[in-house]
Order: sequence, then C-alpha cells, then structure tokens
Amino acid sequence: MTDTDPTITDPELYRTLWENDDVRVLEYRDVPGDETTPHAHPNTVMVTLTDFDRRLTIGGNTRDVSLTAGSAVWLPTQTHRGRNIGSTPTHTILVELKHSSTTPEPGVLGPAT
Amino acid sequence: MTDTDPTITDPELYRTLWENDDVRVLEYRDVPGDETTPHAHPNTVMVTLTDFDRRLTIGGNTRDVSLTAGSAVWLPTQTHRGRNIGSTPTHTILVELKHSSTTPEPGVLGPAT
Repeated sequence: MTDTDPTITDPELYRTLWENDDVRVLEYRDVPGDETTPHAHPNTVMVTLTDFDRRLTIGGNTRDVSLTAGSAVWLPTQTHRGRNIGSTPTHTILVELKHSSTTPEPGVLGPAT
Repeated sequence: MTDTDPTITDPELYRTLWENDDVRVLEYRDVPGDETTPHAHPNTVMVTLTDFDRRLTIGGNTRDVSLTAGSAVWLPTQTHRGRNIGSTPTHTILVELKHSSTTPEPGVLGPAT
C-alpha cells in the first residue's frame, strides 16, 4: 500500500473485502455529494451494484460518467479523484489485478469505453 | 477456449461480456431448476448480483451454497456442474484471471470459504 492507496486516502469510502496473491477486492460506497481525495488504481475490473453518476478529475481533465447497476467495466491504471454528482448512492466492487501492467497510459481517466 | 469452457458447454447461461490480455469477464444468468453441464473455471472472482441457492457437483462430491447479492467470492480453478436449487434467478459476473495458477487443488468445489 502507498499513500495513494484509496483505502488509505478515503478509508470511509473504500474498504478491502479480501485479497490473495492474484487480486485485492475492494468495496466502494458513497452518497450523493461525497468526493474522494486523489488516489491511484491499478488495472481493475469494477462491477457496479447500483446506478450512479460520477465526475472524475485529474489535473485539468474532467470526465462525467453514468453507469448502471450490473455493469462490469475495465478501469485502467490511473490516478484521479471522484465525486458523486447524482442523486443515488454508489455501491461497487473493485477487483484489483496484481499481475498486470502498472504503467498508466497518458490521458486515461475513468473506465475504458 | 476448450470444450470445457462454460461459454461452449452452456452458451444459453454463460456469455462473454468482454476480455483483454488480463481477464475474461462473463455474465451468468439462470432460473430455478436450470442446470449446467460439467465445465471448467480458471481462478475467478465472482460478484453476485442476486441472492441464489446452488448445488455444485463433480464426481461423487456435492456442495450446496447460498450466496447473497453484492458478494465477491474467490472461485478457485475447478471443474463442476451447478444447479439452481432455489426459488430465485441467478445473476452473476465472473472475472476470470488469465495470469494465475491453472492447477486445480484436489477436492476444491465451489467458492473458497
């Protein structure tokens, strides 16, 4: 873990469910208006358990995303902060991969489209 | 893919949502009474989107599992067949890991406890 680990930067929103040699599995929960501090994700599969609307920012870049419950998206290695800009709580499961590239691609922000 | 790939053995229940170099992400849906034919899973993180009750069998071994929606479980490399023995449909997301052990441990059946 580093000081950009989301379980360190935002422990009230992210928690580790379990981990093994291959993955670390996090749960994320927030309510409308909640915002994270900047943090880093490794290559991750995120499964959404609720619908939610989110504004992701890093540096001068901003991207708004709307996801529906039951989606599985690829979240490439990246650093960002996120804000719940919708009217519903967010609940997601994040499957962080331990045996994958850790090099962020320039300009990546949010899930792959 | 092999002939024990669940998207081959049970294409009406399993479908590939997407894949990349690291993972293949499957969706599984069934209704009470549905049963799969024997198939193999690599090391997988399964995220449940519904509550369900399931009987897993392989050889002479049987294990009944009850999972609740929003769970994330580790499904170690294994071959099995499964039957929905409950009264609710099953809906899950399976994150198959491509860079993980492919050697099944003897006697493994169902999610790690």
